[in-house]
This record gives sequence, structure tokens and C-alpha cells, in this order.
Amino acid sequence: MHSGFADYCCRKRTLPQTGKGLVMDVAAGTESSAARRRERGGRTARREQREHSSQGLGRPYIVRNIPAYDVLSEENLVRIEETADRILEEIGIEFRDDAQALEHWKRAGARVDGVLVRFEKGLLRDILKTAPASFTQHARNPARSVEIGGRSVVFSPAYGSPFVMDLDRGRRYGTIEDFRNFVKLAQSSPWLHHSGGTICEPVDVPVNKRHLDMVYAHIRYSDRAFMGSVTAEDRAEDSIAMARIVFGERFTEENCVILGNVNVNSPLVWDGTMTLALRAYARANQAAVIVPFILGGAMGPVTNAGAIAQSLAETMAGCALTQLERPGAPVIFGNFLSSMSLRSGSPTFGTPEPAIGSMVVGQLARRLGLPLRCSGNFTTSKLPDAHAMNEGTMSMLAAVHCGANFILHSAGFLDGLLSMSYEKFVMDADFCGALHTYLDGVKVDDNQLALDAFREVGPGNHFFGSAHTLANYETAFWDSGIADNDSFEKWEAAGSEDAATRANRRWKRALAEYQPPPLDEAIDDALQDFIAKKKADAPDAWY
Amino acid sequence: MHSGFADYCCRKRTLPQTGKGLVMDVAAGTESSAARRRERGGRTARREQREHSSQGLGRPYIVRNIPAYDVLSEENLVRIEETADRILEEIGIEFRDDAQALEHWKRAGARVDGVLVRFEKGLLRDILKTAPASFTQHARNPARSVEIGGRSVVFSPAYGSPFVMDLDRGRRYGTIEDFRNFVKLAQSSPWLHHSGGTICEPVDVPVNKRHLDMVYAHIRYSDRAFMGSVTAEDRAEDSIAMARIVFGERFTEENCVILGNVNVNSPLVWDGTMTLALRAYARANQAAVIVPFILGGAMGPVTNAGAIAQSLAETMAGCALTQLERPGAPVIFGNFLSSMSLRSGSPTFGTPEPAIGSMVVGQLARRLGLPLRCSGNFTTSKLPDAHAMNEGTMSMLAAVHCGANFILHSAGFLDGLLSMSYEKFVMDADFCGALHTYLDGVKVDDNQLALDAFREVGPGNHFFGSAHTLANYETAFWDSGIADNDSFEKWEAAGSEDAATRANRRWKRALAEYQPPPLDEAIDDALQDFIAKKKADAPDAWY
Repeated sequence: MHSGFADYCCRKRTLPQTGKGLVMDVAAGTESSAARRRERGGRTARREQREHSSQGLGRPYIVRNIPAYDVLSEENLVRIEETADRILEEIGIEFRDDAQALEHWKRAGARVDGVLVRFEKGLLRDILKTAPASFTQHARNPARSVEIGGRSVVFSPAYGSPFVMDLDRGRRYGTIEDFRNFVKLAQSSPWLHHSGGTICEPVDVPVNKRHLDMVYAHIRYSDRAFMGSVTAEDRAEDSIAMARIVFGERFTEENCVILGNVNVNSPLVWDGTMTLALRAYARANQAAVIVPFILGGAMGPVTNAGAIAQSLAETMAGCALTQLERPGAPVIFGNFLSSMSLRSGSPTFGTPEPAIGSMVVGQLARRLGLPLRCSGNFTTSKLPDAHAMNEGTMSMLAAVHCGANFILHSAGFLDGLLSMSYEKFVMDADFCGALHTYLDGVKVDDNQLALDAFREVGPGNHFFGSAHTLANYETAFWDSGIADNDSFEKWEAAGSEDAATRANRRWKRALAEYQPPPLDEAIDDALQDFIAKKKADAPDAWY
Repeated sequence: MHSGFADYCCRKRTLPQTGKGLVMDVAAGTESSAARRRERGGRTARREQREHSSQGLGRPYIVRNIPAYDVLSEENLVRIEETADRILEEIGIEFRDDAQALEHWKRAGARVDGVLVRFEKGLLRDILKTAPASFTQHARNPARSVEIGGRSVVFSPAYGSPFVMDLDRGRRYGTIEDFRNFVKLAQSSPWLHHSGGTICEPVDVPVNKRHLDMVYAHIRYSDRAFMGSVTAEDRAEDSIAMARIVFGERFTEENCVILGNVNVNSPLVWDGTMTLALRAYARANQAAVIVPFILGGAMGPVTNAGAIAQSLAETMAGCALTQLERPGAPVIFGNFLSSMSLRSGSPTFGTPEPAIGSMVVGQLARRLGLPLRCSGNFTTSKLPDAHAMNEGTMSMLAAVHCGANFILHSAGFLDGLLSMSYEKFVMDADFCGALHTYLDGVKVDDNQLALDAFREVGPGNHFFGSAHTLANYETAFWDSGIADNDSFEKWEAAGSEDAATRANRRWKRALAEYQPPPLDEAIDDALQDFIAKKKADAPDAWY
């Protein structure tokens, strides 16, 4: 197995500092690719550098400069926590088809009765004390590693749609080509921080082999952090094994380099597929994201406080199980509240109840001291239209307001997660850009307060040409790539386009201009060998 | 002049309580119209009652159940306040073309030098102590009076567009028919609380007579609170005179029944047109809304903290002037921050800087103890598309998060306020509905926590038919009238409509089904006489 990333990290420290070029290259790729570029000479290197720069590397993640939005009183938070404790103690959670999980619970002192596990008050909180409040998920490009916890905010694409959609071809099943396209679009955006996981289901690849092609696409077409498979224990193991090829055995043993997103089978059931995957990630010291999906009135009560209490109970149990598998393993407190239309019984997404509920979930996660995944850019709209961005914007703002550290479903989510939309993807990524500015808050210092500018300009005059404006305008305002701020006349003369039409042009241009980040050839070969062997070892399965 | 509303209020107290019917009627109209309905017999009354109920009366205003979102530290708030104080003391504000305003300032102890007024630190804050922290604006239907201040939130339509727009006819200049249509649409929505002011400019009516037709339309086609003209002192006086016809002289003298929205000529200039109007409202004990419009980089610095300090200085001066005109007059601390595109120089609306800046403005207004108008549903989009609702939703959420009590521009705003959109109006009103649910927050009590439901359902089962779901589902979730939550297949079979197309159908239906609220005939006659006389007294003017 190739030594990869860990060796790179070690060697980097001993390399002579050969000047500015190396520093730039280290930011843009691995040392070995940087070395290759130096060999190919200055002109090519400069061109590549420009291309990387034109793609806008942005920040690796956001460090928020505004506090989270706390909406609930201490007294009411305690009541929700007490309800979660009583659900855990009096009703319990079933752990199905995973004998080892039951063994863990028995040893930890939980009451195990068949597959039903009940937890004395305080037990889970005690177990959770070993979980880190914050951790780094490393990217193969170290400049793009992300911190998950504390004041960090990481935007990751939507996850899990069987369909994809664009304005030209409408809705259709996703393929591995679509999957790669979305990885490339995410990589091209300076406003996303993470490559995500199952961005769409590549239904043209056998079910038992998809994870290999998906993980490979994340590694090959992106240099950001990514997620692996959780749909079976061996697929989780394969995903982690591929991460080891990239980052090295030792580095992976000691650092988080891959995430696995596992769902509770709400209400109050953890099934074996999920706990086996969860334990595989924890065992490898990798981070599981623990996510109850609660559709109020179906998998939980129709009342928000009850659904939140249930979510807290289910998440605490899942997070604690990672610590029983391996104390100290990173884990993310996750959550997916949703509502439903009581006229039609359809699930609804991006509605006000989950949005405001997210704030409470955030408060509860902070009281537990765990990194938070919460909310995202949700909608039931079938088009990238006003409906989509009304719901999506409220929902996405809930995610950043509630203090979420890892925001899955930041871009592309349409039709209640049944479709990934090419147009909405670039609209949402653009909104993620606006949120960088938003989360910077209002900075207060002498330059920002601009008292000298008032002295210069005085009453009744304009600030256009003032020294303060000239000194600050370049960094002054968020500049959207989707909004049209031209005059009506200019906009009309240019064809009266709506935002979806502009977004359509934008994703096509991004794909046309996409440049793959450098990947060490030896790592690439090792990954391809691993995949070929795995594919040859098993017949295709479509379930 | 007709005794109108005040007499109604006095008489009401002496009326015998004749049972449930009267209570319902009082909620739906004035006592005299209720009496007329009783005379016409039960069947008509019941039909009218149903119609009112099908229009959904909603709540008169929102009492928020979540706190405002405070993003800035005490230390930084103080720095902004100190900067505002230094702007006021060292640079000053010009008050042009209003000798009486300068007289007020002299008497109050400000330093007046020509039209430039400078204010010693603390002077304006002292003057502002007489301004009420909260007040009631009365509607002619007392069930629709609104509280402005404290935890109240009042949604009012957009204000001031020369153009209107709909999907059928595109963009065109607004007419008095459009104006009436928007008053009717606002009246039909259960999610708006206020009829607004210059919803669009009725350009088919002479400039010097528009205010008469606009104020009449608010009174005739709505029974909610409304705003009057500010474009000239006599137009402000006319607006207030018309309010007196409706509410009575004495009642109007003692209560707020009309608002006037006045703008600072930023930076640091109050022109006479605005201060004369401002003083006219204050003199009549009616509320002025004091609003600097600051486009960062043009009428203020490009940096947010400086623009906020300027806004605070300008607003404090305007608010204080109302108190010098009449101590104790209601006044609203207003604000309109915006940014611009530094590529094109175009103004931008609904961007992240003003959104996050609104939170700080809210903190500053609360420290002054004044009711707040801030933000709204802003966008530069020329269509009711994804761009419009992305910017509009972020901006509108900023308004409710920052603690704004009176939210002008809650519905219809398009193209940087150059157009009122019929479709966006109903979309935005629908979003105002969602915000009712959102601002209710997460309620915590035994029913909401639903512990019994978990006992009933247990692990792995569904909550669909549980006793708790059956008892709560009717009030459980926000039910949007614009979102399409159906399956893709059902949506496709129904014509694959986008949200704008659904909104187009919805405003047409609302206008077709619109029923004017009852208006006392004597009041109507008196208003029409007043208008006829005013129109006859002056030749038409188009400037």
C-alpha cells in the first residue's frame, strides 16, 4: 500500500524551502505533484497556478464571527433533556441485528432485554465524555482540511438523491457521470468546503460496487475532504481502506480522513446495517455522523418539542455507541427534522417548524459538547424556482444560525431530496458564498467605523470617490454570481433571463473549465488496483 | 366632520351584550355595519361571516415567542454608539428649508450654525426619553389594531414603486387600479397586518392629488391600519385629516391612527419636505417612521459599521425632532441599509451585509428603547424567481430576527423597489404566514413533549394514527398556499407549474373573491366630500 499523504506530511518538514513557488504549490496540491510541475518548468506552472486561482480557492472552511442563535430558555432546554432521558430510561431503543452492539451496551451497564436497550439517566452522557468537541477532517490537499466543531462551519453538497435534474433534460436517474459532474462542480466552487458523499446515486453501477466508484470520484476529481459508504459494513470498510491508500495507514489510524453518515431507523430503532457501519468508522478512528430522520407525525410526534427530545435520545445513543467501540473516536451529533403536509400526507422540507427547531437542537448539541450537523438547503420544489429558494434559504439560514459545524445538503437539494439539480447546485453554492460574508458579522474597528470618511465627505456629499471608499471597495461587498443587479432595461435587452437560466449557463461553463486537481500517480494506481480487485472478487448485485 | 370611530368606541361600552353574534361582528367590522347585518337577518350575516372566515382573519399582529438575535458584543455596540455621537457632535447634520426645525434645535440646546446642527453627546438621548417604547396604531376595525413595539411584529406591504409587474402583462407604470388591487390583496391575506402606504405610485392620478386617492383606497378597501403621504406638508395634513374623519377628532388627538414614513437625505442631511411632514405627523400625535436610506459607498461608507453608526446618528436626530415638536408623540426608529455592486455601481438589495447589519441596528434600537422598523423582503431580481426569493427570504428573516416591530416591504418588492409584483406579493404574503409559525418558536409543555405518545407508539412503529397525532394534527404544521408538496409524478401530471405560475392564479382568485369590509356610509360620504373639495380647490400638477 502506498505511503501517500502521511509520508508527504513527514517529508514536507525536511524539504528545503525553495521559495514562493513551493508555498503556492503546497496550497494547490500534494508535494509530489508540485515537484512534477517544477520539473515541467515555470510557464506551465504559472498557467496552472492561474487556473487554480481563477477557480477561487476560497477559505477551507468558515470560522463564524457571530454567535449561534439561542432561542430557548434554560428551563425549557432542561425539560427537553429530561424528556429524552425518560424516553431512554422508560421506553428504550432497539438495537437490531448487531450482537456486538448489545454486548457493548451490557458491558457499559445499560439494561438489555432482547434487542431493547434502556439507559439509566446520565449513562449516555458519561460515555460521551470521551468524544472530542472538535476535530480536523483532513483533505488530501492539506490546505483544504476542515475543522469540525467549535466556531467552524463546513458546507457539503446534498446527499442521497436517486434522480438528477437539469433544465435541458429534465429529471432522470443519476449515473456515475452525473456523480462525477457534481464532484467537479463542488471542487470548482470556492464556496463549498467538502466534497460530500453519495451526491447522487449512480444507478448505472451495480449496488454492491457503487461505493468504490463514488469514493474514487471524490478522491480523483476533488482534493477536498469526503464521505464514504455506510450501506453495508464491508462497503464502509472498503471506503476506509481507500482513504488509507491516500493518507497512509498510520496517518489514518491517528487522524480523521473520512466521514460516514448513518441514520437512525426512527422511532427508537437502530438497525444492524447502520450500527455495523457506525462501528466500522469508529473502530478506524473515523467520524460517524449520527442522524435521526424524523418526519413529525410519522417517525416522531407531530409536536416539535417531542420530536426534538426523541432526536436527542436517538442521537445520544448512536454517538455513545461510537465511544464504546473506540473511546475518543470523532463523532458528529446529527439531526434531520422534517414536517409533513397534513392535507396530503406528503413529507415537507424547508418549512418553519424544522427551521426553528434546529436552533433548539443546536443548543442541545452545545450542552453536550459535540460537533453538530443540522439542517441544510431543503425544499420540496420540483424546479429551481422561487419556491425552492424560499424554503431552501430559510432552511440553510437555520443551519448557520443554529451553530451547525458540518452542513450536509448545502447545495443541489430538490424535490424532498429525490433529485439533485444542476441549476440549484450552483445557485446554492452561490448562496454559500453569501453566507461567508454573513457569518463574518459586523466587524468593528477604526477603519470599519470610518469616522475619517465622514470628516472627508461631510453632509450632503457622496462617498463614491472618498479615500475610505477607494481603500475598502475591493473587499467591501459580496458579489453574487447568480443575482442580476443590472437595470431592468439592460436585463431586458440581454434576454430577460431568470436565475435558473443563468445557473444553467454557469454549471455548463464550470464543467467546461474544470481542471482536475493533481493526484500522485502511485496513489491513483493503487486505488485503481484496489477497485479492480474488489470488483473482480464479487458478481454484480443490484440490491 | 363625522364623529366616526371615537363615537363608536364610546358607544360600544354602553351597548347591551346581545350574545355571541355581536362579538363576531365586532371582530369583523364596525358596530354600525354589524347592526346593519343583524337587520338584514341571519342568513346573509352567516354568509358574510363565512366569507370573512374563509379569507382567514389571522392574528392582528404577531407577538414573538423567540428572542431577537443579538450578534454584537456590548463593547462593539458602545464603539458604534460613540462613533454616532462623534458624527453628531463633530460633523453634525444639516436641516435645510425648515426654519422651525432649526428653532427647535436652538431651544433644545444644540449648536446651530446656518443649517448645520451639531449635538453635544447625550443631548438627543435626553430628548428621546419622552418617546414611547411601544404604542397602538388603531385600525378602523378595532380587532385589527396593531401594537408597535416590544415583542410585536407587524407585516406591511412594500412601499413606493413606480412600476407594477405581473406574468401576463409584464412591467408597466402603476395606476390607481393597481393600487386598489394591492390594497385588496393585502386585505385578503390573513398573514399581513397592515395596509401600508404608497404601495405603488398611481401615475394616472396628478401628483398633487394622489395622496387623496391612496388614503381613500386604504380606508375603503381595507379595515387595517395604514400610512399617509409625506411628499409635502399639506399632503401629510390631508392624510391626517382623512384619518380624523374615520376615527374622530378627539380619538385621533389621543391615539395613533396613521403613520408617515420619512426619509433622511443621507448622508447627514434632513431636507425641509421631510422634516415638515415629520413635524406634521408628530404635531397631530401620529407616528413618523424615521428612515435613513444608506447605500454603502454612495450615501454612506462602504463599511458596515460606519454605515450603521451614520444611520444611528441620522435616525436619532429625526426621532428627537418629533419629540421637540410634540413630546410623547409616537415615533419609529427606522432603517434601510443597502449595498452596491462594485462591478457595475448598481444598488443591490437583499445582500448579506445589510442582513447581518440589521441585527446590530436592532440591538441599537432596543438600547434606545424605541420601536423598530428594519429590513424587509428585498431583492434586485426582475422576476418572481429563485433569485428574488433567495435574497427576499434572507432579508425578511433578518427583519424578524433583528426584532423589527414594523416591517415595511414585507410583500411585493421586486427590482430594487422599482416594481411591485403581483406574483411576488402573494408569495411573500405566504412567507409571512410561515413566519407566524416560525416566530411562535418551540413551545414546551407536556402535550408538546409527547412522552405519552412515545409510550403509546414504542420503538419501530408509526405515529400516524396515535392518539397524540389525532389530537394535535390540525394545528401541527404550517400549510403553505404556494409550495407544491405533491409527488413529482402528480406535479408533472398537473402541468409542471413553477411557483410563479401558481402565484399568478392565486392573486387572480383573491381579487375575484375579494369582498370589501363594511364601511359606515356617513364616513364614506364625508371622505368623498373631503376629496372632492380638495381636488376642486387646486389644478392638477404632475410634479
